[in-house]
Amino acid sequence: MKLEGKVVVAQGGGPTAVINQSLVGVVLESRKFMQVTKVYGAVNGVSGIINEDFFDLTQETTHNLEQVAVTPSSALFSTRDKPDEKYCKEIFSVLKAHDVRYFFYIGGNDSADTVRIVNEQAKKSDYEFRAIHIPKTIDNDLMINDHTPGYGSAARFIANAFIGANLDNRALPGVYIGVVMGRDAGFLTAASSIAQKYPDDGPHLIYLPERPFDMEKYLLDVKKVYDKHGRCVIAVSEGIKDKNGVPIITKLIDDVEKDAHGNIQLSGTGALGNLLANYIKKNLNIKRVRSDTFGYLQRSFMGCVSDVDQHEAREVGEKAAQFAIWHNIDGSITIHRTGYYSVDYKITPLKDVAGKTKHMCDEFINTEGNNVTDAFKFYVRPLLGSGLESAHRIRAPRVSKILRKEE
Amino acid sequence: MKLEGKVVVAQGGGPTAVINQSLVGVVLESRKFMQVTKVYGAVNGVSGIINEDFFDLTQETTHNLEQVAVTPSSALFSTRDKPDEKYCKEIFSVLKAHDVRYFFYIGGNDSADTVRIVNEQAKKSDYEFRAIHIPKTIDNDLMINDHTPGYGSAARFIANAFIGANLDNRALPGVYIGVVMGRDAGFLTAASSIAQKYPDDGPHLIYLPERPFDMEKYLLDVKKVYDKHGRCVIAVSEGIKDKNGVPIITKLIDDVEKDAHGNIQLSGTGALGNLLANYIKKNLNIKRVRSDTFGYLQRSFMGCVSDVDQHEAREVGEKAAQFAIWHNIDGSITIHRTGYYSVDYKITPLKDVAGKTKHMCDEFINTEGNNVTDAFKFYVRPLLGSGLESAHRIRAPRVSKILRKEE
Repeated sequence: MKLEGKVVVAQGGGPTAVINQSLVGVVLESRKFMQVTKVYGAVNGVSGIINEDFFDLTQETTHNLEQVAVTPSSALFSTRDKPDEKYCKEIFSVLKAHDVRYFFYIGGNDSADTVRIVNEQAKKSDYEFRAIHIPKTIDNDLMINDHTPGYGSAARFIANAFIGANLDNRALPGVYIGVVMGRDAGFLTAASSIAQKYPDDGPHLIYLPERPFDMEKYLLDVKKVYDKHGRCVIAVSEGIKDKNGVPIITKLIDDVEKDAHGNIQLSGTGALGNLLANYIKKNLNIKRVRSDTFGYLQRSFMGCVSDVDQHEAREVGEKAAQFAIWHNIDGSITIHRTGYYSVDYKITPLKDVAGKTKHMCDEFINTEGNNVTDAFKFYVRPLLGSGLESAHRIRAPRVSKILRKEE
Repeated sequence: MKLEGKVVVAQGGGPTAVINQSLVGVVLESRKFMQVTKVYGAVNGVSGIINEDFFDLTQETTHNLEQVAVTPSSALFSTRDKPDEKYCKEIFSVLKAHDVRYFFYIGGNDSADTVRIVNEQAKKSDYEFRAIHIPKTIDNDLMINDHTPGYGSAARFIANAFIGANLDNRALPGVYIGVVMGRDAGFLTAASSIAQKYPDDGPHLIYLPERPFDMEKYLLDVKKVYDKHGRCVIAVSEGIKDKNGVPIITKLIDDVEKDAHGNIQLSGTGALGNLLANYIKKNLNIKRVRSDTFGYLQRSFMGCVSDVDQHEAREVGEKAAQFAIWHNIDGSITIHRTGYYSVDYKITPLKDVAGKTKHMCDEFINTEGNNVTDAFKFYVRPLLGSGLESAHRIRAPRVSKILRKEE
């Protein structure tokens, strides 16, 4: 007996470069099934459902969907709402009224938790429908998954940013600090290591939320690199914490802004970078110290996309539709690495993904806690996709001095 | 009578994505001439000359030079030194000692001024040699030139950044401020206008150094846009000044850092973005206000290059070698637009370019002084090169409400 009814797809949390691939994967695959009467897109995530604000994507052209697929950021718009039980009851009134039987939510671990709550409500309400979470996050912090769609493209941005920052810092030496997104997991910051091509290339130091950040150790690290190379490039996660787990950034801002999930606002401010730069200026005798906070560019920049990431983002959308509509299963789509480099997809119980955070494993971080290992580089490289450019140097010999022979 | 001797090429000022194209253009073209005995690259600009620190680029492989050409940032490294008369005398001691007869300096208007001073010293010293300035600056602020190599690629970065920022801001609305490089000229900030594809697309406001920045007017502008669209994307130049010509950023920082040219340090700090964001938060009832300061990514990011910019950067290098070695002329290479889109190159007296700044013309800025005109977009578009991606939207119809029909 086929479950006939409508499909609703929504996008939650922070946008990524490939989140629309997953959307289009769901829409195109769903439209093939006879039991699917309509495919709706909820505007602004779950808040669009309670507001009954839907696009009728059954009436969208396939060609335009393909154009949207290669456009970054959430085409259905997003939300930071986290539904409680009351919110979910409202969702159900709307879903029933519209005869929606398949719900796909593309998002991170917060969105997975939303799907889990919605699904529990569905069971309580004795309303048969399928709810599937489709993974998406530049943070790469979802459990079970080898990695998540959105990460590869953001990691490619970070790699390209640090390849450039390292070259710039070689040309005009000093200390350069690049602050990278990543509240609890350092995967995105760690992708900066791809810039380490030649032995003296930066980032020379990489600070991750997985290891406690100590200001005095930081100073010693920078001094050591600067003494050796006459310059220092640093990649630092916005989420670095002290030994007590307190985010360094909360030490700076009196009036900390939090979202509906209780998350502190880390992006959209250069405060952490400024603090780290000023600390070097004050305590080491280095004049040229610069910091950049990469901010929203990391997740929205046009034209910096990993093709591998694109393919996988599309497939998790397609697989979601297949699991729900062919196989009648709820859950979270997960990516599993099967070779170097190949993947397969599974469906995992929502509770194993929802609200949980994956961290970088110990094998990916060096003993000193200020860089990554080759094992991490091996892990991350295929995710960045094809066509990644590499920096090249002049290798011509130096000329003998004439006037300053004694030097 | 051919002037036989060595070539020295150097790179000065801030790196760009295509500065090595010009370097390689000079080197490969120079190596064809029989009267050129060696081609040296000065390490760290003019400071490499007084330190007798040269690469022998005659011994560099052509293949590696081609690889270096597509690598961003100055492969010979750079300097902020501005030679005075004493400094120039030291330069001559070295040049004479090494039998250098052709000097090529790739840089902005500060570097052009360096070439001018060096050239004057050459005449005084009765030492025959050719000195040529090769244009380079992401600021696009060199006189005589239609535009300058380096600008097109940086402008492409800014266009891609604002295409993404606009999409991100549509998905999660609020006020977004992107701070762009540009001390005196707004060309780079203005390139953000390429993101204005659909009528409601940002940047909705563009603030340039060419127009006085007034905090109260800014507040009114933002309120107007926010009331209309429920969101607001702003592109602002780091060099914006008040009606008295005082940079807004100097109002914030007590201990302003200056370089050897007396230029205030504007980049490598998020201070201006934070000020502008906080001013909105305090004075308008808008919660989500974010600012990003794009920083060094704008000039060094790997893999965001305009092919038009690459071609022209290569050609100004080649033309420099031809003018100096074939034609025995000093000066600055300039780019002239001859069609839409085609260019030609000339050589211009150094004094017409050195130390001067070109600003955006009135036709490029709207009457209110808070956006650009179509004339500017027509001007800038070809410089961004081919393959620039465009954003696409869902255009499917909205679904009728069932439960909230009254709305």
